[in-house]
Formats: sequence, structure tokens, C-alpha cells
Amino acid sequence: MAEKAQLELAVREQSERVRQMKDKNAPHDQISEELSKLMELKAQLETNDGKHQFILKTPKGTKDYNPKQMAIRAQAFNTIINCFKRHGAETIDTPVFELKETLMGKYGEDSKLIYDLKDQGGELLSLRYDLTVPFARYLAMNKITNIKRYHIAKVYRRDNPAMTRGRYREFYQCDFDIAGQHDAMIPDAECLKIVHEILSELQLGEFLIKVNDRRVLDGMFEVCGVPVDKFRTICSSVDKMDKMAWEEVKNEMVAEKGLAPETADKIGEYVQLNGRTELINKLVQDVKLSQNKMALEGLNDMKLLFEYLTLFGVEERILFDLSLARGLDYYTGAIYEAVLIQSQADMQTQQNENCEPVSVGSIAAGGRYDGLVGMFDPKGRKVPCVGLSFGIERIFSIMEQKMEAANQKIRTTETQVLVAAAQKKLLEPRMKLVAELWKSGIKAEIMYKKNPKLLNQLQYCEETGIPLVAIIGEQELKDGVVKLRVVSTREEIDVTRENLIEEIKKRTCQS
Amino acid sequence: MAEKAQLELAVREQSERVRQMKDKNAPHDQISEELSKLMELKAQLETNDGKHQFILKTPKGTKDYNPKQMAIRAQAFNTIINCFKRHGAETIDTPVFELKETLMGKYGEDSKLIYDLKDQGGELLSLRYDLTVPFARYLAMNKITNIKRYHIAKVYRRDNPAMTRGRYREFYQCDFDIAGQHDAMIPDAECLKIVHEILSELQLGEFLIKVNDRRVLDGMFEVCGVPVDKFRTICSSVDKMDKMAWEEVKNEMVAEKGLAPETADKIGEYVQLNGRTELINKLVQDVKLSQNKMALEGLNDMKLLFEYLTLFGVEERILFDLSLARGLDYYTGAIYEAVLIQSQADMQTQQNENCEPVSVGSIAAGGRYDGLVGMFDPKGRKVPCVGLSFGIERIFSIMEQKMEAANQKIRTTETQVLVAAAQKKLLEPRMKLVAELWKSGIKAEIMYKKNPKLLNQLQYCEETGIPLVAIIGEQELKDGVVKLRVVSTREEIDVTRENLIEEIKKRTCQS
Repeated sequence: MAEKAQLELAVREQSERVRQMKDKNAPHDQISEELSKLMELKAQLETNDGKHQFILKTPKGTKDYNPKQMAIRAQAFNTIINCFKRHGAETIDTPVFELKETLMGKYGEDSKLIYDLKDQGGELLSLRYDLTVPFARYLAMNKITNIKRYHIAKVYRRDNPAMTRGRYREFYQCDFDIAGQHDAMIPDAECLKIVHEILSELQLGEFLIKVNDRRVLDGMFEVCGVPVDKFRTICSSVDKMDKMAWEEVKNEMVAEKGLAPETADKIGEYVQLNGRTELINKLVQDVKLSQNKMALEGLNDMKLLFEYLTLFGVEERILFDLSLARGLDYYTGAIYEAVLIQSQADMQTQQNENCEPVSVGSIAAGGRYDGLVGMFDPKGRKVPCVGLSFGIERIFSIMEQKMEAANQKIRTTETQVLVAAAQKKLLEPRMKLVAELWKSGIKAEIMYKKNPKLLNQLQYCEETGIPLVAIIGEQELKDGVVKLRVVSTREEIDVTRENLIEEIKKRTCQS
Repeated sequence: MAEKAQLELAVREQSERVRQMKDKNAPHDQISEELSKLMELKAQLETNDGKHQFILKTPKGTKDYNPKQMAIRAQAFNTIINCFKRHGAETIDTPVFELKETLMGKYGEDSKLIYDLKDQGGELLSLRYDLTVPFARYLAMNKITNIKRYHIAKVYRRDNPAMTRGRYREFYQCDFDIAGQHDAMIPDAECLKIVHEILSELQLGEFLIKVNDRRVLDGMFEVCGVPVDKFRTICSSVDKMDKMAWEEVKNEMVAEKGLAPETADKIGEYVQLNGRTELINKLVQDVKLSQNKMALEGLNDMKLLFEYLTLFGVEERILFDLSLARGLDYYTGAIYEAVLIQSQADMQTQQNENCEPVSVGSIAAGGRYDGLVGMFDPKGRKVPCVGLSFGIERIFSIMEQKMEAANQKIRTTETQVLVAAAQKKLLEPRMKLVAELWKSGIKAEIMYKKNPKLLNQLQYCEETGIPLVAIIGEQELKDGVVKLRVVSTREEIDVTRENLIEEIKKRTCQS
């Protein structure tokens, strides 16, 4: 009973919170997040009430895609897949779960976010956390040393979802990777070129691709005097520089992680730098950094990378940024991350239209991981790899919002023609005609009524965007014709049965 | 140590079994199943040995798809999706897991095959077992009463896998369903028409679609004197008639399930019947069956169904079969199942070619489930539904085998042209040219070497099926041309840079 009283209180408080947010015209996404909390509380209360009520919902952090959302998602997938194919990639598929052991020791601290399956006897399994580790497992298992592949599939992370910003527990990754022993930075440059092409084609707005190199980071840590066992933890502090000011990051390094303030200051001098070839040249001359073999290797590769990016014509939106660190353990060389830039102009337009700007953070990322395949190979044989990954949910959030703002109509079917009856008792000829159209590859429907009204049939076309209606009436049957109606113009012409298929094809390849 | 000795014995025995099978030239799929058992045993032994060795494999009952297999699978998906779109369907997507509660009480005895996720705090989740229950949950949750949708996604069953026959624990289902209050049997007929179209287009060989009606079955049980509480269990005995002789099925009914022998005999008279309209007409006249309201309703609908199937021109391969029962609990009306028929001629051809016939059992199935959505609706509001489901893995097994037998070459990339260098030191112009081609939407690659040999570049095209090579040499650069080589004919022509794109497009849309 105490628990019930607590729940009731929580429901009342949450209702009040939602009411106040609505009164204050709070952003729509914030209200809807609070609303879903309220619904969960109410459901808990009902369960607690004894009258166990079934909660009709998808699991936390997941969502259904309705037909309209699927149509938008398909557009994004198309752009991405076409680009991957344009660059000559094959595709593979792997199971949604892996042996738990396969995923162990690959993700550092993030391992706690892995979904495990219940032990129902047999192997211990986990849902995949990304597509990179299954890819490395696939290469080692099949002894593949050379492949360029893409893989588009769902991955799972027990993270705190922020669904209105496109952060889910189940989400698609679109990965492209090049595995094999190749000449330095040519595959790396192609990966960045691909990120650039896709972001340009998707037209999500201005973007910037930050690059860095793990060897430059580690070399920098070394010359600044960071103890080797603190490299990874200091690295993850650096990774926060896109969300926190340097002073805060420094404080974390010194107060929380026990770094000497002088060391942190030295790091600070480096990680606030960004630029292109001129910066790389400067750092190659840097008295301390140039003494470090690892850093110098990384810098020379960065220099080569920018040469290649210039040849590909994409260097303008790519920035060498010493604060980019990336979370994952397995990177060994170049790392990169693409972010969308909300220009001042964008913000104003959106506010004028009273529509919330979607803040999505990083939208694609990747890097070089030369050691991962070797972790799976019994003899530790290495296969150098470099790749990239797009998160479709964040892209989808932006595309959906843009389309809503532009009030764009989206068709969810591809039906070209509805076979309709002008009078009653014409189900038989309707069924025969629609079967004829299907046979010729025409996308056609009939309404599932014996005697539908013509008006309802025409209305169905208007609602679903079907461009043509093939109307059968008693007169048409006698004359051996079909009345073909163009929904948008209401134009009607009689077409003989022999010419019907061709006429429909002619009229729908234009529309 | 005792356990280790046991394992060692098991490994020895299994090795011997595999050796004997090889000696006897046993079928390849049987050997490979025994081989994988041997590998599992060996892996267990190693773990047990103390020297814990990582087992490089996918989870039991799952497999990776390599690029070649993906290309075949894509063909099957294309045929299926095109057909679904031709019939005017939209598509949706749902999460791979559902609340455990959503799946509870929907699958009868098969519920034990559901994969549960580990309780890591939060909701209790299970991997979806089919796409039908998530669809019904989606309809109820969004209060949708009218939709025609397809959904292609993976489902999960902790079944005993028989992977060489296309039976997996993770497999794709391709579902098409029509939800809504419609006139009798029109949507049902369209579902059967779709099964017919897809099986015809896939060209997997002869097929037969068996149909029955749950009301006819239940009515038959009633008039034969089966107690109501035994309907479902007797139903699942009937379902075994495609694998067992009637005498065996009868024995199960009487000895195991305690049915009176006379009752079983009466059932036997009915379930051995099959036919089309003439049989339905006979049963409508049947003294006992015609007295049963439920059975009569089902029979009248079956009659209507065959009228519509005749109008659609597909009645020839569809058979009313009183032994078809289907396992799932949720069917309420028409049920159907498509099977491939191995003709005598097929078998002989295959034996001559020394290639195993793939026995795959049912390849598509479905039926009407008018009560399922109501199970999710708080007020029990019903949405009548009828649908069908294709299993792609079984289709894929057959397609893969057919292609292997025919020695068909399958390309795994779509690359149209390789940008190649005739001499050393031409990475720069190669990169510039390939970027130009990408910009024009041409699928192009370069080799990731600074100075690749021309022979290696040409060989790469031969191996991967790239039809064209754009060769740059010092002379070509001077002349402002590119040497375009057709790989198959070895024909070479000089093309100016301005005409290159057009020339490539012209030559690759023909090939």
C-alpha cells in the first residue's frame, strides 16, 4: 500500500509537470519525453493496483516505424547504399547475436551496455553492439585478408535513450569497411570521401568532418608526461571537449584522474589546436612532438591523408582536430567523426517556423583498427582495417522533421491503378482485370468489397495517391473497353482492353 | 577428469563416424552436420583442458551470409518485395524484441522456443517469434483498423536447427497481411494469389498450395465426437499427416491422446479427402457435417474462395485438403500452406548430376486470424486479419543449389569501371579521375596501391567481373584522353575526357 501511495504521488507530480510544460509552450520533444514517463508511471500504478493491465508498448528505447516513416527511411538507405555500391563494395550479413565471448574485451567501459540473452541452456549469447566486431570475427573465421564490404543492420545498446534526438537502444548502423594490406592512407581517404559524399547527398545542412590519429594522441600524451596506464582514461576526458570547456576537462583530468596540473596544461596547448596541412607541418617541426616516433608516424600519415583529400576535392569540410579522441578501444590510427553544424541562419529560420531544431551530435564516425581481426585469429595474424559507420536514426529524425516542415506529401505505396466498378455486381470482371494487370507487372489494387461505391473508390485513390483508375461499367464491358481516369485532372478516356496495359505504362512512367 | 575422458571418447567416436560417412560417400549435407558436431566436441574438450581456447563460430543455428550468398538472397527478396508492392502494400518495421508479455499466450506449446533476454534490470524482453504477433500489437497500439502491409525481418526460434535443409534459429520471414473489415474471402483469395505469383516467379519447381478452414476442422471434430477440450491436441495430430501414414496418426490419437477408436475412424474418413469445388459441394451435402453451423460456414467460404481463385486463374495448383491443420493457435478461418513437389523427373536429373535433392517442406504458409488484435485491445475490439508468410532461408537453399549446379557466375559488386595506371607515379591522376566518375554517379574503383602493375589491375577486373578499365598513361595524359578497355573483348579505344562519362554510361547500360 505504501508503494501504491508513492506511485500515485509520482503520477500526480508527473501530470503536473507535463501540464506546466504545455502551459509554458515547452519544446515538443521535451513534452513528449515527459508524457511517456507519465504513461509508464500510470501503467505501473495499474499493475500495482491488482487489476493487472497489459501495457501496450514497445520496449524502452525502441520504436515502430509506420509506413510514412519507412518511406523516409528507405530514401536515406538508398542514398547510403548507392554510395557504398558506387565505391565497389560487396555486402555481407551476420547474426543479430554473437557468442558472448566474441564481444568480450572489445568495448572497454561500454561493455556494460551490451544486451545479454537469458541462459536457456546451450551457448551464452549477446546481441551485437556494433557491426565492426562481428565483421572482424567474420574475417578471422573465414581467413579473409582482403575485402571491401558494407553491412547495414540493427545493433543494440542498453544506453539511456533520448529518442527525440534520434538516440535509441535498437538502431541501424550503415558500415563500410576496407580490409587488407594496402598503401598508406589511400583506403582511409576513400572512407572520408564516402562520408563526404553521403552527407552532401542527404542535404542535412552544413557539416564538418573532424580527423585525428590515435598515434598522434598517444605520442602527445607521452611527451606531455601522462603515465602510460592513464592514456585511455585521459583520452576519454579529451573526448569530452566537444561538450565541455577546456577548463572543465582539465579539472576532470587533475581532480578526478590525478594528473599533474602542468601535464594537463601541456595537453591543453595541443588539444585546442585544429587546422589542415599548415598545422600538420607546424607539428612536424614541434620540438617535443617530433621527437616521438609514434606521433611523427601519425603526423606524416595525416599529411598524406590531406594530400589525398585534396585530390578527391573534399579537404574543405575536413579538419584535423587534436581534441578528437573517440571512445572505442580498438582504433589504432586515423579516427574521424562527422558533425552537423547548425548555422545561425538555420536556427533563425527554424524559430520563425516555430519548429524545434534537432540536435543530433555526431552523425557518422570511424577509423582504422589494425589489431581487431588479430584478436580473433588463433595465431594472431593481423588484417589491417579502416571503416566508417552512419547512424540512420539521427539522419532519419532530421529528414522527417524537414519533410514535416515542408509539408511534403509522401506516398507509402506504389500502386499505379485502382480497378474500379461503376455499378453493382461487377466483382467478377474487376477480379479478372486486376489479375491481368498483375500479370503484366502493373501495380494494381481492387477494393475488398463486392459492390463498392464509385465515389468511395475514387476517394481511396485521392487518399493514397493512386494516379489512375480503370473503371469498368456495363457499357464498357459491352464495348470491350475500360474507362481510364487520371485522378489529378479527372480526365477520362476509353481504352480498348488490348491497349490498356500499354496506356497505363505510358502514363505512369511519366508521373 | 572423468568428464575429460568422456569428452575424449566422444571426440574419437565422432571422428570415426565422420570417417565412415566419407568412406561411404554419404550425402554432403549429412557429413557437414556430423563434422560440425565434431568441431563443437573438440572445442568443448579444449575448454575443459584448461587451455581455454576461443571458439571462432556463429551461435548454434545461425550463419553468416557471404557476398555471393547475399547476391542470391537479394534476388529472392526482390521478387517477393516486387510482388507485395504490385499488390499495393505499405511496409512497417517493429523492434527485434518485444515485452515478454506481448508474446505470452500466443503460440501454445511452441512458447518454449522463444528466446528471452537476460534480466539486466528494467523490462522483461523476448526476441520476436514471428511477425504476426508484433503486427497485431502494432495495430492495437495505434488503433489501426485498416491496412495492407508487408514486413520483412528476422525472427528467432530455439528450435532444433537442420541448417542444410534451410531450418535455422535465426531466419527471415516475409509477411504480407490485410487487416480490416472486408467482404468474405476477397482478401483471402488475394493472399493465395500472391503465394502463387511468388512461387511461380521464383521458379523453384512444381508446387501445391493446400487450403483448409479451422471452422471446417473444428466442426468435423464436433460431429465425429471429439471432446471440445481435445480439439487442439487432435488438430496437431492431424497436422502430422504429411509426414506420417493415417494408421500412425490414428494410433497417436487413440493410444496417446485417449480418443475412442470409432471417433478416430470417423475423423479418418474426412481427413483423407482432398479436392476442389466438387468435394466442397459433396461435403455441403454431407448428412453429419452439414448439420454443424461452424463447418457449414467454413465450407461456404471455401466454395467462395475457389470461385475467386478461378477468377484469378490460380485454382489449378490450389487444393482443398482436410488434413491441413497448421500448428499456431491464433488461426480462426482459412489456413494454407505451400509445398514444393519433387517430381520423379527432378529426382532423376539430380541423381544423375550427383547432387542432393533439397527437401524443404513447407515454403510459405498463412491464414486468417480474426481474434489476435482483440487480444491486445483493452476493450477487446477485433480487427479481422488474413496474411501469408514466406521463409526465405528455404528458398535461398534451393536457389543456391540450383545456381551451383548450373555453375552460374554471380557478381557481388556493381562496379562499372576500374581506373587503372599504365605506368608508375600516376596515383594523383587516378584519384582525380575516379573522383570525377563518382561525381557523375559512375560506380568506379581504384586499386589501393601507389604503383600497381597494369597486369594486376586487369586481373582484378577479370576476377570481380568489372566490365571496363579506364587506363591512364603518360601519353594519354598528354593527349587529354583515357584508354577505355573492354575487359571481355580486350578492345581498347581512346576517349577524350569530355566524352568519357557518356561513353562509360553507354557501354555499361548494355552490359
